[in-house]
Amino acid sequence: MSIEGKRAMIKGIIPPVTTPFVVGEVAYDKLTSNIERWNRTSLSGYVVMGSNGESAFLTRDEKLKIVETAKKNISAGKILLAGTGSDSIKETVSLSNDAADRGADYALVLTPSFYKGSMNSAAFVRFFTEVADKIKIPLVIYNVPKFTGVNIEADAVAKLAQHGNIVGLKNSAENAAHTAELISVVPRDFSVLVGTASVLYPGLAAGATGGILALANIAPDQCVEIQRLFEAGKHEEASALQKKLIPVNKAVTSKYGVPGLKAALDMLGYFGGEPRSPLAPIGEKEREDVKMILKTAGLLD
Amino acid sequence: MSIEGKRAMIKGIIPPVTTPFVVGEVAYDKLTSNIERWNRTSLSGYVVMGSNGESAFLTRDEKLKIVETAKKNISAGKILLAGTGSDSIKETVSLSNDAADRGADYALVLTPSFYKGSMNSAAFVRFFTEVADKIKIPLVIYNVPKFTGVNIEADAVAKLAQHGNIVGLKNSAENAAHTAELISVVPRDFSVLVGTASVLYPGLAAGATGGILALANIAPDQCVEIQRLFEAGKHEEASALQKKLIPVNKAVTSKYGVPGLKAALDMLGYFGGEPRSPLAPIGEKEREDVKMILKTAGLLD
Amino acid sequence: MSIEGKRAMIKGIIPPVTTPFVVGEVAYDKLTSNIERWNRTSLSGYVVMGSNGESAFLTRDEKLKIVETAKKNISAGKILLAGTGSDSIKETVSLSNDAADRGADYALVLTPSFYKGSMNSAAFVRFFTEVADKIKIPLVIYNVPKFTGVNIEADAVAKLAQHGNIVGLKNSAENAAHTAELISVVPRDFSVLVGTASVLYPGLAAGATGGILALANIAPDQCVEIQRLFEAGKHEEASALQKKLIPVNKAVTSKYGVPGLKAALDMLGYFGGEPRSPLAPIGEKEREDVKMILKTAGLLD
Amino acid sequence: MSIEGKRAMIKGIIPPVTTPFVVGEVAYDKLTSNIERWNRTSLSGYVVMGSNGESAFLTRDEKLKIVETAKKNISAGKILLAGTGSDSIKETVSLSNDAADRGADYALVLTPSFYKGSMNSAAFVRFFTEVADKIKIPLVIYNVPKFTGVNIEADAVAKLAQHGNIVGLKNSAENAAHTAELISVVPRDFSVLVGTASVLYPGLAAGATGGILALANIAPDQCVEIQRLFEAGKHEEASALQKKLIPVNKAVTSKYGVPGLKAALDMLGYFGGEPRSPLAPIGEKEREDVKMILKTAGLLD
Repeated sequence: MSIEGKRAMIKGIIPPVTTPFVVGEVAYDKLTSNIERWNRTSLSGYVVMGSNGESAFLTRDEKLKIVETAKKNISAGKILLAGTGSDSIKETVSLSNDAADRGADYALVLTPSFYKGSMNSAAFVRFFTEVADKIKIPLVIYNVPKFTGVNIEADAVAKLAQHGNIVGLKNSAENAAHTAELISVVPRDFSVLVGTASVLYPGLAAGATGGILALANIAPDQCVEIQRLFEAGKHEEASALQKKLIPVNKAVTSKYGVPGLKAALDMLGYFGGEPRSPLAPIGEKEREDVKMILKTAGLLD
Repeated sequence: MSIEGKRAMIKGIIPPVTTPFVVGEVAYDKLTSNIERWNRTSLSGYVVMGSNGESAFLTRDEKLKIVETAKKNISAGKILLAGTGSDSIKETVSLSNDAADRGADYALVLTPSFYKGSMNSAAFVRFFTEVADKIKIPLVIYNVPKFTGVNIEADAVAKLAQHGNIVGLKNSAENAAHTAELISVVPRDFSVLVGTASVLYPGLAAGATGGILALANIAPDQCVEIQRLFEAGKHEEASALQKKLIPVNKAVTSKYGVPGLKAALDMLGYFGGEPRSPLAPIGEKEREDVKMILKTAGLLD
Repeated sequence: MSIEGKRAMIKGIIPPVTTPFVVGEVAYDKLTSNIERWNRTSLSGYVVMGSNGESAFLTRDEKLKIVETAKKNISAGKILLAGTGSDSIKETVSLSNDAADRGADYALVLTPSFYKGSMNSAAFVRFFTEVADKIKIPLVIYNVPKFTGVNIEADAVAKLAQHGNIVGLKNSAENAAHTAELISVVPRDFSVLVGTASVLYPGLAAGATGGILALANIAPDQCVEIQRLFEAGKHEEASALQKKLIPVNKAVTSKYGVPGLKAALDMLGYFGGEPRSPLAPIGEKEREDVKMILKTAGLLD
Repeated sequence: MSIEGKRAMIKGIIPPVTTPFVVGEVAYDKLTSNIERWNRTSLSGYVVMGSNGESAFLTRDEKLKIVETAKKNISAGKILLAGTGSDSIKETVSLSNDAADRGADYALVLTPSFYKGSMNSAAFVRFFTEVADKIKIPLVIYNVPKFTGVNIEADAVAKLAQHGNIVGLKNSAENAAHTAELISVVPRDFSVLVGTASVLYPGLAAGATGGILALANIAPDQCVEIQRLFEAGKHEEASALQKKLIPVNKAVTSKYGVPGLKAALDMLGYFGGEPRSPLAPIGEKEREDVKMILKTAGLLD
C-alpha cells in the first residue's frame, strides 16, 4: 500500500460472509452464487474467513481457495478482506501473504489469545507490529472478546495506529464506551469499524467509519441504509431502522449464531446450508422462530 | 405516584453522589455543601446510596440520615432517587418505604445477585414485581453487571415495564446493544437511563432519556451540555464533547473508581475526602494523573 | 477467646443449615426439629445464615432470632457458627456481636465483594483485621467465589492467619490447588475447612481439618464417615465413599442449589420446604431426578 | 490400537516439554539435549506441542520436526504424546496422523473452543468422536479452561470414554471436584491425568493415574516421588512433598508462565531460553524471585 500522508479508509458496510458447505465440504460454487447476488447491493466489500466464515474449521488450502473464489467474483470497486490471524506470527504472515497473492486487499488479523493472562498491551503491540512489518497488504486488527476471551485496550491501539501498514480495527465488542475510546485515540485516517449491527448507529454516531456485520449477509440494503441515513443527518430515521433490525441481528448472532445465520440465508434465497461439525444446524423450532423474526422485520413475506 | 395513562419520565443528567466521610464517619455537612453547589447547575436530580455513594459500606441508620440530609438541601424541581436494593425483598421494601418517608422520590433497586446461577429472567420478574407492589414510591431498576455479576435481559425488562410502579431502568452495562435492545422493548413512558458517561451520547442516540453518571459529580455542566446539544440536533458537537470527556470519565470510574472520583472532587473545590475502608484512597502518583487528566479536559486550570 | 499459644481448632463436619420457611416466613419450629434430628449424629456443629441458609434474603431481626433458636437447641459439645458478613465493616461488627450475645461461637464472615476490582489482598487484610479487632467471638473467613465473584489469595490469608482472633477459613472454591496453597501458608492451629463435599477427601488429604458442607444437611453420617476413614488411614475406602456421594452432592449444590437441597430434606424426613422468593422451588421433573439420585446413593429406600 | 477388552493405561509423570528457541527459531538440538537429560529420570514419557511447548506459535512443519526429534531421542519405554488439536476436525486428523507417522504414540487433542457458546457436551462428543474415528493413534482429551475458556463436563466424558480409540483425558482445571467427577464416570481402563502439579497428590487420591505437569520439566524426580509415596500408602509424606513444591509450581505456571518455566530450566542446567514472540522473557527482578523459590525448595544450591 502506498501511503502518502494518508491511509486509504475502509468505509461502509461489509458482510463477513458465511462459508457454504455441502456434505461437509466447501461448496465454492455456492459462495460464487451468493457473492453474485450481494454484488448487486451497495455493500463496500466482503470479509472471507471471518468468525461467520467458520474460519476455525477450515484447512489452509480451503482458505486460499476461498480467497481465490471470492476475488474472481466480486464486482469492481468492492474490497476483499481475508481473515488470516492465528496466535502464530509466522503462520499469520505466511497466510496473509499467500492470501494477498490470491487477491486479498486487506488482512483481518485476530488478536492472539491462547496465553490469555500474558496478552497485555505490550504483547499486542509486539504481535501486530511484527505481522504488519512483514505482510504485503494492509492489516486490520480484529478484536472479538466473546470468542477470544481477550480485549485490546486503547493504549495498544493508539500505538499500533501509528504503524503505516495497520489501517483499521474491527471491534466486535458491543461495549460502545470501548469503541468510543478507541476512536478518540487514533488518527483520522485510521478506520474503526463496528463488528455487530446492534451497535451500528451508535457506533457511527461515535465516529466509526462503517461496520463488518453478520447481519449484512441477509439484510445488506437495510444496513447500508442506516449508514446513508446517518450521513444525511437523518438521525431519528437511522435510529428507528436500527431498532427494527435488533431482533433479526440477535437471531443470527448471539441467539442462534452461524447456524441461525445460515438458516436465514436459505429462507431469503441465498445458499446457507449446514455449518461444519462440531457446530450443528438449528432445529425445526428454532427455524420457525427465525422465520417469524424475518417476517416481523419485513425481510420475508 | 398517580399514573393516568402515562408515567412521569426521568430525564436529564443525575449524579450518583459520593458519601463524604471524615475519619471514617459520614460527614452530613459536607454532603450538604456539595449539594448546595450542584444545585446551581442544570442537573435533574440526585442519586444517594448508589454504587458511587459507597452504599455497600453504610449502615441502615446512616442511609436514612443521608436521604433526610439530601432531601432538606436539594433545590426545587430536582428529584431524589435513593439506592435501596439488596437481595432481600423484605429489607428492600422496608428500606424503600423508610426512604420514601424521608423524602426519596424514587427507589433505585439493584438486581438481586447472590445466587447468580438462579438469577434468570423469571427470578428478576418475581423480585421486582414483589418489591414494586409493596413500595410507595416508583421503582427504577438498577443493572450493573460489573458489580453484581448478573445482567437483566430484555425479556424480563419488557415484562417489568408493564408494571405501573416500575418506571425506569439505569443500565450501567457499557454494552450499547443491550441498552438499544432494552429501549426497543419498553413503552414510550418507561425511562431508560445510561449508567456511565462514556456511552451518554450513543445512549441518547439510541433513545435513552438521560444518564445517571459518576462523571456528573465533577463535570455536571458538561454532561448536561452533551444532552442539550443532542436534543438540539447538534450531533457532531455532542459527539466531540463526549469524546473529550472520555479520559476524565475513565479516571473516575474503571481506572481509579470511587477513590479517584473523590480525589477529583477535592481538586475541583467540592468535598471529596477518603473512601470508607476497605477501600483505600489513591496514592500521590495517581492523584497527579487525575490532576493532569482534569487539566487536559479543561476542568481544572 | 483466650489464646495461649494455640487457637481452638474447628474440626469435623458441619452443615450450613437451611432456613425453613412456611408461606414465606421463617419457621423457627421447623429449624428446631431439624436440629433435634441432626443432634443425634456426629456432626461437629452448625452454621446458620450461610449461603445455604438463604442469609441474603433474611432481615437482621430474623437472623438474630435464628441464632437464638439454634443456640437453644443444639446439643452439648456442638459449636455454632453464624454467617454475619457483609461489605460494611460497621454492620458486620454489629451483627457479629449481636449474634455472639445470642450464643454464636464463631462469626463466619464473607469476603467483601461489591467493588470487585478493588478487592485485592490489601483490602481483604484491612477488612478482616478491622472486623476481627472489634468482635468478641473468633472470626472464620468465608471464601466463596461462585457467589461473590472474588477470591482471597494466599498472601492475604497468610497475614490474616497471624491475627489472634481469626481462627479459620472456609474455602468453597473447588480449586484444590488453592486450598492446598492456603494450608501451606497458615500456622498449624489455623483451621482450613473445605466448603463443598465434592472435595472433602482430597481436601483432608491436603491438610484440611474438616468441612462445612451442604451435603451434611442430608447425609451427615456419610460425610462424617469419610473423615473417620481418612483419619484411620483407610484412604481407598474414604475415596470410594466420596465418589459415591458425588452425584448427590452435585444435585443439592451446582445442579439444583438450595431449592434442590430443600427438596431432598423433605424426602428424607427433615423439613425442607420452599426457598424464599426470588428463588423458586424445583419442579416435578427435577424432584424425580433428586429422588432417583438419593436412591442410587442408598440414602433413600 | 488393538484393544482386547482393555486399553493401555497412561500412568506416571509426564512433562509437557518446552520448545527451545534461539533467535526466534526452533533449536532442535537443544530439545535433544534436554530430552537426553530427562531420559535419565523415571518420567513415563513426554508431551510435545502442549501449552508449555508454545504450540500456538509453531508452524505445521516445525511441529512435525519436533515430533521427529523427540521420537529419535526418547529412551525405550517412554511414551510420546503430541499436541495436535485445533478447532478444525480436518486439520486435527491430518496433523495427528502425520505426527503418528513420525512416531507419536498418542494425540493429545484440545477441546475446540472458538464458538464458546456452542461448545456444549453434544458438540464435544461430535468433535472427539469424529477425530478418534479417523486417527491411527489413541486420542487423549485435553481440557484446559484457563486457556480455552470452555470446560468439558462429565456427561460428555462418560460418552467419549466408551470410544475404543479415546483412552484418556488430561484435566488442567484445578477443580478437584471436576476431576473426581470425571473419574467417577469413566471405565477403569480410561486414564484421567491431572494437568498441574498443585493438585497431583489430591488427584491421585481421587483416582488419577498420573499427571502431565509443567513442573516435571524442572523437578521430574520430585514429581515422580510424590506418586511413588502415594502408591506406597505413605500419604503424609506424599502430602508434605506436594506442599513443598507448591510455590515452585506456582512460579512456573500461573505466576510467570512459560517464560518463568524457561528461566528455571536455564538455572537448573537445562536449556530454557526465550519464549517466542509475542510472549516476552521475564525480567531481572522476576528471575531473582524464581531463583529464590528454587533455592527454598531445595532444587537449586
